[in-house]
Amino acid sequence: MDIPQPYLLFIGDVTDPLAAKTARGIHAWRPEQCIGQLRLDGCDVTLDLPDLSLSEALAQGAKTLVLGTANAGGFLPEHWLVSIREAIRAGMNVASGLHQRLTDIPELVELATRYQVQLFDVRHTKEALKVGNGKARTGKRVLTVGTDCAVGKMYTSLALEQAMKACGMSVDFCATGQTGILIAGSGISIDAVVSDFISGAAERLSPDNDANHWDIIEGQGSLFHPSYAGVSLGLLHGSQADWLVMCHEMGRPYTRHLPHHPLVSLADCIAENLHCARVTNANVQLAGIAVNTSSFPEQQARDYLAQLTTQFNVPATDPVRFGINDIAEFLLHHG
Amino acid sequence: MDIPQPYLLFIGDVTDPLAAKTARGIHAWRPEQCIGQLRLDGCDVTLDLPDLSLSEALAQGAKTLVLGTANAGGFLPEHWLVSIREAIRAGMNVASGLHQRLTDIPELVELATRYQVQLFDVRHTKEALKVGNGKARTGKRVLTVGTDCAVGKMYTSLALEQAMKACGMSVDFCATGQTGILIAGSGISIDAVVSDFISGAAERLSPDNDANHWDIIEGQGSLFHPSYAGVSLGLLHGSQADWLVMCHEMGRPYTRHLPHHPLVSLADCIAENLHCARVTNANVQLAGIAVNTSSFPEQQARDYLAQLTTQFNVPATDPVRFGINDIAEFLLHHG
Repeated sequence: MDIPQPYLLFIGDVTDPLAAKTARGIHAWRPEQCIGQLRLDGCDVTLDLPDLSLSEALAQGAKTLVLGTANAGGFLPEHWLVSIREAIRAGMNVASGLHQRLTDIPELVELATRYQVQLFDVRHTKEALKVGNGKARTGKRVLTVGTDCAVGKMYTSLALEQAMKACGMSVDFCATGQTGILIAGSGISIDAVVSDFISGAAERLSPDNDANHWDIIEGQGSLFHPSYAGVSLGLLHGSQADWLVMCHEMGRPYTRHLPHHPLVSLADCIAENLHCARVTNANVQLAGIAVNTSSFPEQQARDYLAQLTTQFNVPATDPVRFGINDIAEFLLHHG
Repeated sequence: MDIPQPYLLFIGDVTDPLAAKTARGIHAWRPEQCIGQLRLDGCDVTLDLPDLSLSEALAQGAKTLVLGTANAGGFLPEHWLVSIREAIRAGMNVASGLHQRLTDIPELVELATRYQVQLFDVRHTKEALKVGNGKARTGKRVLTVGTDCAVGKMYTSLALEQAMKACGMSVDFCATGQTGILIAGSGISIDAVVSDFISGAAERLSPDNDANHWDIIEGQGSLFHPSYAGVSLGLLHGSQADWLVMCHEMGRPYTRHLPHHPLVSLADCIAENLHCARVTNANVQLAGIAVNTSSFPEQQARDYLAQLTTQFNVPATDPVRFGINDIAEFLLHHG
């Protein structure tokens, strides 16, 4: 899936700032790929991007209209079809992170064929995948893993990519979820592939590369999450990571959405991830720990991170609060 | 997926006995559900079942025509459509274990609607699945796990079901692969579900049950198989097994189809399966080891199994060569 950039970000008429999380993520991480925003009447959310019409955006080089919003059911509001049709007729591709597929709407498929543009349903992969084979690949790989869902694996991956670039390293972010794919313009939504192909999809996501090139692979779920561990393990095996960065939320007591399921300890989670990763890469090591400390005062957060650094002998940081340069430099010197 | 039994087994015109493996498995494990076989001219494979025409089979109560063959591409030979159409018109359901879906052939879908019969593509689940939640369920569960693919997990599960029934226990076989599903008449092809739903599918497969009821869940793949470990872990978590039976092939040096990947040791594989299973069932235990010893002379096989029994303190047997009563009795006394 390769989505032509730059984008015009469509926010529709959402009124909840959280609903525009995806669009906001794209703008935050790839500002140079965002030409403007397209809003409908009644929308009071803004990304601090210029409001552009389709023709204005096209004139400035926009190649894809991105539906950068989320709603509960993941469905496409019918009145948004007006803008989508108009974009297609104007020659713009359309990308959507919604569950409901653009390509399931025959009218849009016909229109896209007629106007020779592409429709991207980033939650669904159309690629013919192979099962994984576990064969070693060239190049270097970092995978973000976690004690749970929603502990900052995408943020950590993108921040690390940025910090490693600043160190002069050759590095790419490999997206495995819909927001990441829209940010990168490519990737595979790993939890949407048929389960036989999880590790095969991960292998395809970070193919052979130059010996000194780094792929930073966006992790998903957790080996200890009863809902998603299969995805996490297939991704871990297929990634063949040389280095893991463990993501965690300080003080989180239970697994997300499962209040009957206490969170695994950080030490157990690190040990298990390294153990499982060795199935496809005997030399895998821990490169750092990225912690969301936002529920705690700064000094308490600093003390906790210092303790983790001592305990695990790698940099521990909160990438949002304190940056992630320590982990980038660790990889520069040890990788 | 509930496939009405009994069956008429369609073997088409295959000439390789191995191609009729699925039909043979159904006949071996559910002889009472197999009314007869339907063969085309040129077929020299037989199941030792009466050759019946569609009308003869219907008269004897057959409810479903089962395509019980496999070929390299998993496609449906076009000249078989004649028999399939005829079966539908005669009021028989049709079930297929092929990759190519019956339900992708509009003509068959229309015909099935008109004659009010069902088409079953057992490799593909149509059910709307939920993500797993890891909540404890009532009843007892055994899951077969393995050091690799093709080490006898389905055979062991079915043999154990039979042996436990002979002990007077209340027990059901829960199928997770296409042959198992055709044998049981129900189940979910776990490697064909979208990866987000692996553990959710496993939870659905063995729902709450009576406290003294046993579900024997057919395992898939291996935690140490670089291609399929994600499926195995999701199935392990979703099954919430109380007991594991480890399946293994004596002397196998490499992981199947991956000659660059040495096989995990039995001890490591048992430890890791128990460790991972504890995420959703803290009380999980090993109930036995089922070994394919067919490449070794009998005395060498017996010595190896005796050594495993001592090492792991559970019954170790070759279910094909020596039966599986020891494991059934172990569960009767310890479960």
